Amino acid sequence: MSELRRDPISGRWVILTPDHSRRPADFTPPAAPIVDASACPFCEGREAIAGDELLAWRTNNSQPNTPGWQVRVVPNREPALRVEGDLGQASDGLFQRHGGLGAHEVIIESPRHTDSWSTMSEEAIGRVLWAWRVRIEDLQRDFRLRSFVIVKNHGAAAGARQDHAHSQLVAYPFPPSVIESELARGMQHFAATQKCLFCDVIREEAALNQRVIAADEQVIVLAPFAPRVPFETWVVPREHAPHFHSASEGLLQAVAKHLRDLIRRLDAALLKPPFNLWVHTAPISDAAREAFHWHIEVLPRLRPVSGVEWGSGVRVNPIPPEEAAQVLRDS
Amino acid sequence: MSELRRDPISGRWVILTPDHSRRPADFTPPAAPIVDASACPFCEGREAIAGDELLAWRTNNSQPNTPGWQVRVVPNREPALRVEGDLGQASDGLFQRHGGLGAHEVIIESPRHTDSWSTMSEEAIGRVLWAWRVRIEDLQRDFRLRSFVIVKNHGAAAGARQDHAHSQLVAYPFPPSVIESELARGMQHFAATQKCLFCDVIREEAALNQRVIAADEQVIVLAPFAPRVPFETWVVPREHAPHFHSASEGLLQAVAKHLRDLIRRLDAALLKPPFNLWVHTAPISDAAREAFHWHIEVLPRLRPVSGVEWGSGVRVNPIPPEEAAQVLRDS
Repeated sequence: MSELRRDPISGRWVILTPDHSRRPADFTPPAAPIVDASACPFCEGREAIAGDELLAWRTNNSQPNTPGWQVRVVPNREPALRVEGDLGQASDGLFQRHGGLGAHEVIIESPRHTDSWSTMSEEAIGRVLWAWRVRIEDLQRDFRLRSFVIVKNHGAAAGARQDHAHSQLVAYPFPPSVIESELARGMQHFAATQKCLFCDVIREEAALNQRVIAADEQVIVLAPFAPRVPFETWVVPREHAPHFHSASEGLLQAVAKHLRDLIRRLDAALLKPPFNLWVHTAPISDAAREAFHWHIEVLPRLRPVSGVEWGSGVRVNPIPPEEAAQVLRDS
Repeated sequence: MSELRRDPISGRWVILTPDHSRRPADFTPPAAPIVDASACPFCEGREAIAGDELLAWRTNNSQPNTPGWQVRVVPNREPALRVEGDLGQASDGLFQRHGGLGAHEVIIESPRHTDSWSTMSEEAIGRVLWAWRVRIEDLQRDFRLRSFVIVKNHGAAAGARQDHAHSQLVAYPFPPSVIESELARGMQHFAATQKCLFCDVIREEAALNQRVIAADEQVIVLAPFAPRVPFETWVVPREHAPHFHSASEGLLQAVAKHLRDLIRRLDAALLKPPFNLWVHTAPISDAAREAFHWHIEVLPRLRPVSGVEWGSGVRVNPIPPEEAAQVLRDS
């Protein structure tokens, strides 16, 4: 029998259908496209093709835009939004429009084409998180940029256009709707209880201990109560903090360790699935300080979103999170 | 240069990027899967496989669950929600859950495997709309079912699991989030202006006449101001009406004519694209009467949703609706 569940953080309803048949095709990811590595723009030695670097981790006194880096950040060659944009006037009767102001950057996560998060070291993943943090720190000094989303697409089925490990940073002039609705619910909860909604969820999840995949003093990794897709997993700092870019080096290194461990578990359980990873961090606003708790969401992309799911906004998921957490703990 | 636009109906922000390169692969739909028609459960003569009919259009005194029908409605064999469900108690601290109460039906739109909306007659499509209407009319008598969504997936890339023309009706015990947020904005607008938001949009669109694809006295077909995907199109009754299931025969026949015409234009412009079609109709509630305006949304499914779009809720679309409307008018 199916069950309707509402995610406490986002307010999303999800239908769990554990009695549905689990077609092998639903859970066998399609093969990755064969990309000619010799044409990859992100490999070491092709810095001129990837673009002028905004940031790089270099330890050997190498010069900018030359080989010798471990992580490198460049502008997206086809940005959705640009810092050269002009917000302009917002209102035109019913039809609100703005210039495409924002930023869109690419974080190249390794100089080597064949690296992935399951083969990279904790330190190497920690350098990726460092690059995310430093770029947001820099961009948020521009008072027009008010909200930031980090996205990592792994595999063509997850929307990646390059096999080479990379992620993207998008800066918006307002909170995008996913962040806005999380913040709105967090503010409601704070107004009613004087507590952070996410802190309350962490406390309940830890006490219940049915959906926890891994945990230590700094970080909890869990299958959320109402997961959108099979094996959706969240990586959450235990201590309340609204902004990813304010995280300490120590916390980021702990998160990197858990992320690497999680990707290895997903790879073992689901045969190296394509996935999306998102960092949710608070908009730059005082109202967000108490009501938003930064975290990372990892969603394996095992099957396409159905027309019924997309058309209603209610996702249908045959794998209950309690079962997914058990599988990942055992992987 | 890109532009940020907010859809007045849903409140969704969209980024239009007309300067992005339009990769051929982005707009060439993948080939449909080859399905063995001899195994299709929806073809005439296989009524026992498709299931016991809830409704059928029969003109020749043929018996239920035998050949001789033009449209046939059966229960979904793997329903997301069931009328046998029990809503149960809602609250469990932070974690809200319900039994999977609802309904999930399949409308088989033609007895013939090779039919599609571009080859079917206006009258045949009209019979599909009739079946949608009659089934919602029937289900809404169950006071536990409060909101209905009709979904048509055409093509594997749009999530269809059968090539045979069909659609789905899902009944929910509460408005799913897509309907809930449309209703919330409609109620805000009504409270502020005493007018229907959609009626205001129709009036502005008709006056502006930049995004109108077709129109007559009863129906307007338009590219919305902030389309989520290239060539998104809405088919809207001009007169205010909250509920699809209250539409007259005459209006449904006019809508059928415009839908057939639209699918033919999309087929010509985009080489028979996969698409999703949704009927948005008001929840069964007095509050919805003045604030919700039923309509149909058609979204070609030309490329996957990217990780950046999914992770932010802000879609990126390289084709401005003014250009899409021009292309479809000329097709």
